[in-house]
Amino acid sequence: MYRFLALLGVALFFAVAVRAQTVDPLPSWNEGKSKQAMTRFVKTVTTADSPQFVPAAERIAVFDNDGTLWSEQPVYFQLAFALDRVKTLAPQHPEWQEQQPFKAVLEDDMKTVAAGGQKALLELIMTTHAGNTTEEFAQIVKEWIGTAKHPKTGRLYTKMVYQPMLELLAYLRANGFKTFIVSGGGIEFMRPWVERIYAVPPEQVVGSSIKTRFELRDGKPVLARLPEIDFIDDKEGKPVAINQYIGRRPIFAFGNSDGDLQMLQWATAGSGVRFGGIVHHTDAEREWAYDRDSSIGRLDKALEQAQGKSWTVVDMQQEWKAIYPSQQR
Amino acid sequence: MYRFLALLGVALFFAVAVRAQTVDPLPSWNEGKSKQAMTRFVKTVTTADSPQFVPAAERIAVFDNDGTLWSEQPVYFQLAFALDRVKTLAPQHPEWQEQQPFKAVLEDDMKTVAAGGQKALLELIMTTHAGNTTEEFAQIVKEWIGTAKHPKTGRLYTKMVYQPMLELLAYLRANGFKTFIVSGGGIEFMRPWVERIYAVPPEQVVGSSIKTRFELRDGKPVLARLPEIDFIDDKEGKPVAINQYIGRRPIFAFGNSDGDLQMLQWATAGSGVRFGGIVHHTDAEREWAYDRDSSIGRLDKALEQAQGKSWTVVDMQQEWKAIYPSQQR
Repeated sequence: MYRFLALLGVALFFAVAVRAQTVDPLPSWNEGKSKQAMTRFVKTVTTADSPQFVPAAERIAVFDNDGTLWSEQPVYFQLAFALDRVKTLAPQHPEWQEQQPFKAVLEDDMKTVAAGGQKALLELIMTTHAGNTTEEFAQIVKEWIGTAKHPKTGRLYTKMVYQPMLELLAYLRANGFKTFIVSGGGIEFMRPWVERIYAVPPEQVVGSSIKTRFELRDGKPVLARLPEIDFIDDKEGKPVAINQYIGRRPIFAFGNSDGDLQMLQWATAGSGVRFGGIVHHTDAEREWAYDRDSSIGRLDKALEQAQGKSWTVVDMQQEWKAIYPSQQR
Repeated sequence: MYRFLALLGVALFFAVAVRAQTVDPLPSWNEGKSKQAMTRFVKTVTTADSPQFVPAAERIAVFDNDGTLWSEQPVYFQLAFALDRVKTLAPQHPEWQEQQPFKAVLEDDMKTVAAGGQKALLELIMTTHAGNTTEEFAQIVKEWIGTAKHPKTGRLYTKMVYQPMLELLAYLRANGFKTFIVSGGGIEFMRPWVERIYAVPPEQVVGSSIKTRFELRDGKPVLARLPEIDFIDDKEGKPVAINQYIGRRPIFAFGNSDGDLQMLQWATAGSGVRFGGIVHHTDAEREWAYDRDSSIGRLDKALEQAQGKSWTVVDMQQEWKAIYPSQQR
């Protein structure tokens, strides 16, 4: 009886071991150069007797969000939130009927909004993102993200995250990596939902921010959101923010646009083996196709430097079996 | 034989279980109100069927550093670093022989340094903390912290961390808490050594900061440290920084001075059960005794509010069996 149990145990052990080897952690990635490069990198830094072994505490991976973890067309989803918010708030602001850029937003006249440039955009963001407390804003974001749908796909925005990237995040974490988001988007716009969607906790989210102020209201402490830019987490700002928030240089970085160029440079210039990755939007049919000439997510310099720096450029159309969750599988 | 092994296994299981119950996770704390309050709190939030159960992801604990995790007398240890640094750099700055506040530092004339007030202090900090890259500065801190000794105790500064607080940090982590430092001290002064000493990784350290700038030097990216304040993580700044860096309201906060008042208010005003703790420096013999009248680590308003808010005030002299590591045990 004892011998039988022991044999059964050995058999089970091998069955599990073999299964562990054969389950593909990245099923939505076609076999190809990107998948190979990523799995080779992870194997190299996690193999204990490898000269390139990296202790778990130093396995920091950073991901841009817009265009890297979810779509960003035809406008950044956070802008869609701001525009919806203007419409929601309009009844309390009759003056907006005659006042730009609000008038244009209420008339769905995106041409006029765009013509307002940076100044109009900033005004829209400040009006819709400030003037409340951090807890009130989180609640507003949660309600929007739980109901608003994308005009082209009809999907919830959270259903427009990339299935292959969800798998990559999970694969890295299963290999001892700590995964961070480092986005040009608003830090407090992301935090209310990224834990549920990406399994990235709020303390591992870095982004652009407006200033807040501590106040006691009727003896109750609140953080008031002020209409003043605190930090823009884009381009040269990304390595600055990575240093400020994380305090360690990532060994793995993924982006999709020139806004991620300096983050990729910073992460991959460290000592030892490094991984830099770029999502190249090449799939006009299943998602969007754009790079050098796009005003949103422009990918020009980073694409140019990718080859010399040995960054992995993912051809979305060729390498991704699925784009969004539950689309194929 | 099989039955014998099974019985042995059961016996071992119980031995381990009993031992787990009897090993005291806080051996340097005397049995008393603080130890009771902490263990009761931890039990309450970690008991799965407790109405006050808190999921592990939300078990955020924040600790001030100076005076809470290590000593801060007769001057903040970071100021001792700055003064030492002035002396190290003096040969390259002959002009300092005649220029305040440097002249006073070189002559160990602390009265004159203090008389220079905020302005002199800021000049000392900027001169000694900026003008290098983040990697160079980390190296400078590492070298200093590895060798410099405290003038009164003769100990390395890292041997002046509080043994009871090291145990508390470990106890919280063993119960699923994520421990953060939220200090008025410089974030880049702490990060090079806190992981080794407190087992708190750099990405869980929040502090005051100066600005940095991304630069390519001979094609190599660096972050240059600029002589410009970025953020002061003190008083009202602490809840602001907690929100910015962590994005979740802590359920457990520990400080020792009025600089921690707003952090304690913010953490303990959240919903559900909360813990606020204050280290009260009452031990003139083994450490220092100071509160309301101290210019360093002044504890006045926070002490006054402690009772009404049910914060736990630790009487260092009465409640701590040991102050520093390997002192008693």
